[in-house]
Amino acid sequence: MSNLKILVINAGSSSLKYQLFNTETSEVLAKGLCERIGIDGKVKHTPAGKDSYEADVNMENHGDAIKTVIKLMTTGDTAVVGSLEEIDAVGHRVLHGGAEFSKSVIVNDDVIAAIKKCIPLGPLHNPANLTGILACEEAMHGIPQVAVFDTAFHQTMPQKAYLYALPYEYYKKYGVRRYGFHGTSHMYVSQKAIEFLGKPAEELKIIVCHLGNGSSISAVSGGKCVDTSMGLTPLEGLPMGTRSGNIDPAILEYIMDNENIDIHEMTNILNKKSGVLGISGISSDFRDLYAAKDQGNERAAAALESFIYSIQKFIGSYAAAMGGLDAVVFTAGIGENNAALRASVVEPLGFMGIKIDPKKNEVRGTIDISAEDATVKTLVIPTDEEFAIARDTERLVSGK
Amino acid sequence: MSNLKILVINAGSSSLKYQLFNTETSEVLAKGLCERIGIDGKVKHTPAGKDSYEADVNMENHGDAIKTVIKLMTTGDTAVVGSLEEIDAVGHRVLHGGAEFSKSVIVNDDVIAAIKKCIPLGPLHNPANLTGILACEEAMHGIPQVAVFDTAFHQTMPQKAYLYALPYEYYKKYGVRRYGFHGTSHMYVSQKAIEFLGKPAEELKIIVCHLGNGSSISAVSGGKCVDTSMGLTPLEGLPMGTRSGNIDPAILEYIMDNENIDIHEMTNILNKKSGVLGISGISSDFRDLYAAKDQGNERAAAALESFIYSIQKFIGSYAAAMGGLDAVVFTAGIGENNAALRASVVEPLGFMGIKIDPKKNEVRGTIDISAEDATVKTLVIPTDEEFAIARDTERLVSGK
Repeated sequence: MSNLKILVINAGSSSLKYQLFNTETSEVLAKGLCERIGIDGKVKHTPAGKDSYEADVNMENHGDAIKTVIKLMTTGDTAVVGSLEEIDAVGHRVLHGGAEFSKSVIVNDDVIAAIKKCIPLGPLHNPANLTGILACEEAMHGIPQVAVFDTAFHQTMPQKAYLYALPYEYYKKYGVRRYGFHGTSHMYVSQKAIEFLGKPAEELKIIVCHLGNGSSISAVSGGKCVDTSMGLTPLEGLPMGTRSGNIDPAILEYIMDNENIDIHEMTNILNKKSGVLGISGISSDFRDLYAAKDQGNERAAAALESFIYSIQKFIGSYAAAMGGLDAVVFTAGIGENNAALRASVVEPLGFMGIKIDPKKNEVRGTIDISAEDATVKTLVIPTDEEFAIARDTERLVSGK
Repeated sequence: MSNLKILVINAGSSSLKYQLFNTETSEVLAKGLCERIGIDGKVKHTPAGKDSYEADVNMENHGDAIKTVIKLMTTGDTAVVGSLEEIDAVGHRVLHGGAEFSKSVIVNDDVIAAIKKCIPLGPLHNPANLTGILACEEAMHGIPQVAVFDTAFHQTMPQKAYLYALPYEYYKKYGVRRYGFHGTSHMYVSQKAIEFLGKPAEELKIIVCHLGNGSSISAVSGGKCVDTSMGLTPLEGLPMGTRSGNIDPAILEYIMDNENIDIHEMTNILNKKSGVLGISGISSDFRDLYAAKDQGNERAAAALESFIYSIQKFIGSYAAAMGGLDAVVFTAGIGENNAALRASVVEPLGFMGIKIDPKKNEVRGTIDISAEDATVKTLVIPTDEEFAIARDTERLVSGK
């Protein structure tokens, strides 16, 4: 990488997360978070190697927030660059690129129009992401803005993987299809895995298990995503912290009739009150669930079992989808840090050649945790979505 | 089997299908169908080896229908037994046994109460099934009635397979869990497969693909069902003739908002207008889809690909669920008769040891269609739900 300074922005409806990267050294020069934008305002800014600066700062909108961030990065004790001009580009996380975007793009009017078009698909995130882009364009005039889509990596899926068995008109009229999410992570981690395995991408069939509070699994064959567990929205797939994942679609009518609730409340329950939280009644945090299970809590144990079982079934199904398997990769909060869960997941998969070395699995930082006689590699690769966004942004603005 | 005559009844809301078996010879002595019960009435009765008898017969209710059937079976040219007393027992197909029934039972007042309790889970079928039982009890007083549940075989599933990641109260209050259907077929076919393979059931891991207009797949380990693709209702799992199978549960809200329809219309669309009919826009019949595909219809091809791909993924996921696989069994209309589809399904699964012999696959009636070097057997076993119901009924009334 060349020596560029790239600011990475993840804008939520009332928040703005940021990291400033030096792409040559991969160093994070500063990172921080603006919260309660449009309410009152609170900022936390951490320059590399220094203490965090925290303050209440009134921020009416995302424009105020980005101005606050620029001021903190360029002036006084909190500064990490001499002036705004040192920042070479801004990379923005955008949730939903629909079928419009199969890779990251430099923002222009057409891109903004296309992101707007995708708002119905990502009604909670896309407007906030767009606000972040527009605020940066205004405050950082002339500095290139890049949009990096959570859905883009999955656009290589074949039709059989993305088409739902619904009336075809819903696909044509409303774009109802599988898009998949966590794409930046699945791309970054699968590329790292390919590098680690040291074979041509064309020869490799990889399953990436991105397991965090939101979880998704993808099948990557020849370096391209061929299937993924999340769908039109991030609700589908595995049971997650609070999301149901796959259920019988007839369950919605059954519960709505019994509980006398409407589809919006129902969908909200599926997103916010289901998953391992719903089963356990305790927590969406897997550390809490392991602790409760250790104390004999049966519903916590049931929630963990459901999660693990679902991962096992996705691994089997994606191996079948690709017609073989070379490596399973664990990443994200749970995937990287929970050795007990990794051990449980692979336990019955020895018949597929997936076997881990229990000692390697326990040592933090070990990438290859496979047993000697495993014919499929099991890897642990930390994800870094912000860095992946910075790298993609750098690639685009440097014309590579 | 001993020499019993068992009548098998499948009662729908305005129909009544029946078959009379001699359990010693497995012979079907007569079969037929009463239709338009409560409307006007139409009956078709076919004694073994004779021409069918068809007539318009006014039938106010299922009681009239069963009286019509008894008359046809016992008198005149259509008779197959000397008198009603020759019929030893009646076996009734009942759709939903909830968590109450893990096997077939002789009907008594408690059983009737329990079937009534399951009506919310099977609102379209259970009331009709119950009407059939009550009509037979009245018309055939003293002859034992047996209830055979479509859900019973799946009751051995472990909790991790049947529990959805939903608020736990829905499971406790409303019985929201996976039940599975086609159980009589999955049981019959998996038992036949075990007999054919000639090993103890304990040593065998089998996947049964029941592929018809409704399709479901089950994982049978040690002779017991450990997972199945249908769920609370028969909507979940594979794409079917008109049913969507698995979709992102958030799709319902998205389509309902766009189309301005309610949850009942939405669920009806998922049941009646989706699946391969929905994708293709042509037909729910796979023969039509193959014909259209051969003429270059891309949506017919897409529908077939989605169906095949989904079967492949379920085979992979259930092998992972069982930690291995000894045999894949194809059954029901499509599974038994569509050699091209079987070939497509197993095509990428060679890495799992699943390989078929193309010639054996083409010869109707061949049970073992595996290639010489396959390590997992591929079998084609015709299902016979009516005979399985007769056999279970005979077992219960003869006290075996």
